[in-house]
Amino acid sequence: MGGDNAPEIVINGAELIKQRLPHIDLVFVGDETQIRGFLAQTKHLANAEVLHAVDAVSPDDTASQAVRRGKTTSMWQAIAEVADGRADAVVSAGNTGALMAMSKLQFRTMPGVTRPAIAGLLPSEKDIVCMLDLGANLEVDEENMVQFALMGQAFYHSLTEKERPVVGLLNVGEEEQKGHEYLRLASQQLSDPDLGVNYYGFIEGSDLVKGEVDVVVADGFSGNIALKTAEGVARLLSSFLRRSFTSSILSRLGYLLARSSMKELRRKMDPRRYNGAVFLGLNGIAVKSHGGTDALGFSNAIDVAANLVDHGFIPDVSNAIEKAALIREKRKLSDVE
Amino acid sequence: MGGDNAPEIVINGAELIKQRLPHIDLVFVGDETQIRGFLAQTKHLANAEVLHAVDAVSPDDTASQAVRRGKTTSMWQAIAEVADGRADAVVSAGNTGALMAMSKLQFRTMPGVTRPAIAGLLPSEKDIVCMLDLGANLEVDEENMVQFALMGQAFYHSLTEKERPVVGLLNVGEEEQKGHEYLRLASQQLSDPDLGVNYYGFIEGSDLVKGEVDVVVADGFSGNIALKTAEGVARLLSSFLRRSFTSSILSRLGYLLARSSMKELRRKMDPRRYNGAVFLGLNGIAVKSHGGTDALGFSNAIDVAANLVDHGFIPDVSNAIEKAALIREKRKLSDVE
Repeated sequence: MGGDNAPEIVINGAELIKQRLPHIDLVFVGDETQIRGFLAQTKHLANAEVLHAVDAVSPDDTASQAVRRGKTTSMWQAIAEVADGRADAVVSAGNTGALMAMSKLQFRTMPGVTRPAIAGLLPSEKDIVCMLDLGANLEVDEENMVQFALMGQAFYHSLTEKERPVVGLLNVGEEEQKGHEYLRLASQQLSDPDLGVNYYGFIEGSDLVKGEVDVVVADGFSGNIALKTAEGVARLLSSFLRRSFTSSILSRLGYLLARSSMKELRRKMDPRRYNGAVFLGLNGIAVKSHGGTDALGFSNAIDVAANLVDHGFIPDVSNAIEKAALIREKRKLSDVE
Repeated sequence: MGGDNAPEIVINGAELIKQRLPHIDLVFVGDETQIRGFLAQTKHLANAEVLHAVDAVSPDDTASQAVRRGKTTSMWQAIAEVADGRADAVVSAGNTGALMAMSKLQFRTMPGVTRPAIAGLLPSEKDIVCMLDLGANLEVDEENMVQFALMGQAFYHSLTEKERPVVGLLNVGEEEQKGHEYLRLASQQLSDPDLGVNYYGFIEGSDLVKGEVDVVVADGFSGNIALKTAEGVARLLSSFLRRSFTSSILSRLGYLLARSSMKELRRKMDPRRYNGAVFLGLNGIAVKSHGGTDALGFSNAIDVAANLVDHGFIPDVSNAIEKAALIREKRKLSDVE
């Protein structure tokens, strides 16, 4: 029931994903009458399961308001389906803060994880890049950063099947002595080959979309600012480009000729392709779709969820976190000796 | 003598600015033989003053190494010209850390300023936007942020003659309760009308280049990351665009037709137009040009320096800082009562 055009775009997105990934089963949680109405218009989902919820989280609710109203909302009940083992993942275009708070309450943080984080996707020069944290943790320490790296690595692996994604730390310079102390300490830990991270080192904002690094680890404050700056600059350039193409008859004609290449460029930069932010570090999969997306965008958020389930993301993260804890213990012991 | 193609591009840049701003006098500091050689090829600078310096700061020197070698370098001597009152501003394409350290040593921090900051320029949807700090201060408090706002406002005013530039604080959300505590405290102070800041409120990364705000105030860590992310995304999009235009015969033809509009777009996004970062909060004007720029880019850095001199930037900042201190005192007194 969340997002600007729910439940219509949710159901149309589900219809798209059913064609792409027929093996997944979809359960819709929300106003049954509305949902049934839209499902009846689909080809593949006419008989899909619907769980009625009498209430929905409002976009204006604070996380704590949403949690208080809690159990009667479609968001809470959809998460409960996963928490109770009847579903594998939840996807919502609703209130981000509420989704995060309710997921944390019901899924609980994974043993050993100090701070869950939000990860998202961006286009890069070569392919696609994952960045985390995007705003769940404004203040971080070196342990958080190392865990973000492990979680981001598993996330990227699940999405792309790339065996050893390259991980970088976002900093104000590439030299070892640069930046905050927790960055230097995290960098030391990530360089330990026992940890199994394909660690690149520090990267600067200018390298974010270069594609040399698959996973960019940042504190939630600068990660959020970097992601949103990238989105803002991409929007500015599209608007400049559109104006350029319509500024004269000649350039309009030029656009017509170059249209198919321009379409390809638009496709590559299309934010709907990168839709689907994930809360990492919980005992369950919750994917947040942009509220303003359309059916195609929402289908990509479901795709992210399906990939994480199919590729065993949760056990992957849990193993990596356990291994890191053992390494830390060993290091402490040897420091004592 | 600093930058990738010194002193040639420096002198060619000076030649360009002499045509644009004939009222300014230029003094060249560095290897006299080399400089005289290039000056002889110019139209307007054949008789320009040259101060010989036997040494130059290397791009690989740390700030402390550069300062230690100090007084024999062209950079030190050029700054000394300003510190001793014989010149009004110094412009260099050399080592950033060294320029900052030497400027701070010779100019000294302006009375009342707690931390000098680096400001730079970016294109925006409407015009041009100034951002600071870009990396001089990784950790900041609310007083620093308020002073950055005052200094950024004076800087923007000097450059564009806009009477009341709009100032925003970079944050992870626009709501009042978002972000670090020092941001909320700075926001409260900036809302005080007595301070005379045309304060907009918090802005997110996505608004950085929207043009609703003229001056964006950030801590040096996220400011640096935002600026470099913007540069990186702009580069990525240009590269995608270039590839699109050369991907088929039709799109090449399309480019030819749209060429003049594309040129205008390129001009708008040209990093040379935004060249010239400034150290604010010192008793003197030091402008840092990109090391890799060309004559046009360097001429714009000189242009920034000339604007700051012509529009009384230093007294403007000093007045604003004094006024803010008085307001703070008054507030403290009334808190005591």
